Amino acid sequence: MKAAYILPKGFLSAGIYGGLKKSKHLDMGLIYSVAPCEVAAFYTKNKLQSAHIIYDKNIDKEKIHALFANSGNANALTGMQGILDAVEITRAVEETLCLKKNSTLLASTGKIGKKMPMDKILKNIPALVRGLSEKDKNFPVAIMTTDLTVKVKTLSLKLDGKPVVITGVAKGSGMISPNMATMLAFVMTDANIDKTLLFSAAKEAVDLSFNRVTVDGDMSPNDTLFLMANGLAGNKKLSKQGKAYTAFKQAIFKIFYALAEDMNRDGEGATKFVKITIKKAASEKQAAAVARSIANSPLVKTCFFGGSLNPGRIISAAGASLEAIDIEKLELKINGVTIIKDGEMVMKNATATVKEMKTKDLAVELLLNTGKAEYYLLTTDLSVDYIKINADYN
Amino acid sequence: MKAAYILPKGFLSAGIYGGLKKSKHLDMGLIYSVAPCEVAAFYTKNKLQSAHIIYDKNIDKEKIHALFANSGNANALTGMQGILDAVEITRAVEETLCLKKNSTLLASTGKIGKKMPMDKILKNIPALVRGLSEKDKNFPVAIMTTDLTVKVKTLSLKLDGKPVVITGVAKGSGMISPNMATMLAFVMTDANIDKTLLFSAAKEAVDLSFNRVTVDGDMSPNDTLFLMANGLAGNKKLSKQGKAYTAFKQAIFKIFYALAEDMNRDGEGATKFVKITIKKAASEKQAAAVARSIANSPLVKTCFFGGSLNPGRIISAAGASLEAIDIEKLELKINGVTIIKDGEMVMKNATATVKEMKTKDLAVELLLNTGKAEYYLLTTDLSVDYIKINADYN
Repeated sequence: MKAAYILPKGFLSAGIYGGLKKSKHLDMGLIYSVAPCEVAAFYTKNKLQSAHIIYDKNIDKEKIHALFANSGNANALTGMQGILDAVEITRAVEETLCLKKNSTLLASTGKIGKKMPMDKILKNIPALVRGLSEKDKNFPVAIMTTDLTVKVKTLSLKLDGKPVVITGVAKGSGMISPNMATMLAFVMTDANIDKTLLFSAAKEAVDLSFNRVTVDGDMSPNDTLFLMANGLAGNKKLSKQGKAYTAFKQAIFKIFYALAEDMNRDGEGATKFVKITIKKAASEKQAAAVARSIANSPLVKTCFFGGSLNPGRIISAAGASLEAIDIEKLELKINGVTIIKDGEMVMKNATATVKEMKTKDLAVELLLNTGKAEYYLLTTDLSVDYIKINADYN
Repeated sequence: MKAAYILPKGFLSAGIYGGLKKSKHLDMGLIYSVAPCEVAAFYTKNKLQSAHIIYDKNIDKEKIHALFANSGNANALTGMQGILDAVEITRAVEETLCLKKNSTLLASTGKIGKKMPMDKILKNIPALVRGLSEKDKNFPVAIMTTDLTVKVKTLSLKLDGKPVVITGVAKGSGMISPNMATMLAFVMTDANIDKTLLFSAAKEAVDLSFNRVTVDGDMSPNDTLFLMANGLAGNKKLSKQGKAYTAFKQAIFKIFYALAEDMNRDGEGATKFVKITIKKAASEKQAAAVARSIANSPLVKTCFFGGSLNPGRIISAAGASLEAIDIEKLELKINGVTIIKDGEMVMKNATATVKEMKTKDLAVELLLNTGKAEYYLLTTDLSVDYIKINADYN
């Protein structure tokens, strides 16, 4: 896998500045596939849903040719007008590309509650279409908001002897919580696969990647993931029993996980990358609840930021999950060093743990010692910069 | 009600520096009642419980004469030794005061995971007892941790013609979430009331006051509230049907709410006092879930800090509660100004709302318009200072 944006066969993309952002950063993007795509689509569970999601849900059962994406405006909390705007944008894209109706998906990110600047968007669609290229590098930039890094991954594999490419592009980076995030992620592949199988490969991978990231516990109205497959690699259509499907599923997971990790590393104001793993729990549900309680605790996250050793806060956050855990059985490891054993501090390891707390990557393992289930979450610290970024975001 | 610490009849207290804190701030406190007290006790629901709570739960059915409190050490995550220490401290207090066993409650606050410095505590108990006075002003100071203000309230009323005094003292101020907080609150009264009635008056008041405060969503292992009544006012014992009991209940609620409000105003790093009220909900449970989702959203709280108008974040946080709310029915008011109506921004009120966002006290009202239930929470903003205080807390 490469941290590169190399499009699979038959895909083109583009990114331009359309005047949606005050800064002159690119803010309009387009993906186009010459062959129709099967799509697996996943959306936020927030009860407030962006107009683009309300629109997409109506067409994501169709074969898809294009995806229009914009940053600078979330088209959320925009009422009926937002939905009409969504329709008008996709119609304009379809007309310009000579596509039939309902073959263009939409994805928006940016500020909530502002009407879409339709004149600017419509005026710039022809230029966006003219920019389409197999060698495009602008699309990943056009979907960024407070992201500091471009998030792109490309992976090649052989399925049934045929070279297949999977390319992912994503944006984070605040409002990142399980059930996705203020995230958009688009993954393209030329693999030949039917819709049902594509969805089930994606679903399994989503649960172990994007749904395991929590930067601040907030869930956005815009989170969207599309996995698009146009079949141009020419492999024999994947079947559920075949080895090729297993390889494809693993590749999809790798791409999803790598994008999720990138998002987490680029969490708003993040200075640390923290993987929290709950082990030996009575059930996965319990492990997940404890992991989430720790990962979303501001007191734990400020500790990670300060690099100070305060394992009591981690145990306290675990206890605050209200799960039936037995404090006297707990074992806590920071980067492999045991700092709590049988519910008490291991003082002889304090110095070594203090040193580990200063590192950029933290592996926090909490063993509940009451069963065999396990669950992990990726998270960040809570920094002064997080506050600054979000206090003034307009 | 006065913001003063004036002890009811028969109560004495003291506060000294016993060497538990690196700074020379007072850190050991004692309350003593010459007559035995009925007690209503409430504790954190965190699965990690301070040793003092494990100890107190065993004796809080008894009549109580004294309460030892310390800051500087939470006596949590200290295993069996922590409980043995709790017993030793209360025995020492009882011996020095010539009290019988199991008549002294204990409350600790401070860092988690450190053993109690027993030599310092035991050495200083005689001095603490010698300091007991009806005119003491040191006890409220001795229980402070990161609190910036002393939290004391005194209220007088007549019950059955007899003057009765209720005095409350509390400490906050981080780890503050429903199901209490890193809070200790001790309320003393000379009212004559039996244990069952005392508990039910306290329970009702707790649910509407301390359980409505959330500074950072964290729940501490040490949260403790004691309401102690020694009966020395000489009123006829309160009965459930009497007007006097209703007046007493109201007075207890007033004291609890005032202390809860003080705690919230002094939340770690807080620059704003925010009351979030969910109205016209389908059920109180729904209203509470939506209120909590808004009050604990870092993105909403950083907005309060920045004083920027971003009502979309509030609606998004409401939606993230996953409660069945209808976005198109929502109405949002900031300090009485309607900024969202029928799920859309009321642009003509934007300027007025921006002005309100800059004020120190924010009343956020969200009308779901699907029922009649209501719920409120008190919270704060999330500031740069919150991070700084907690990143370096040792």
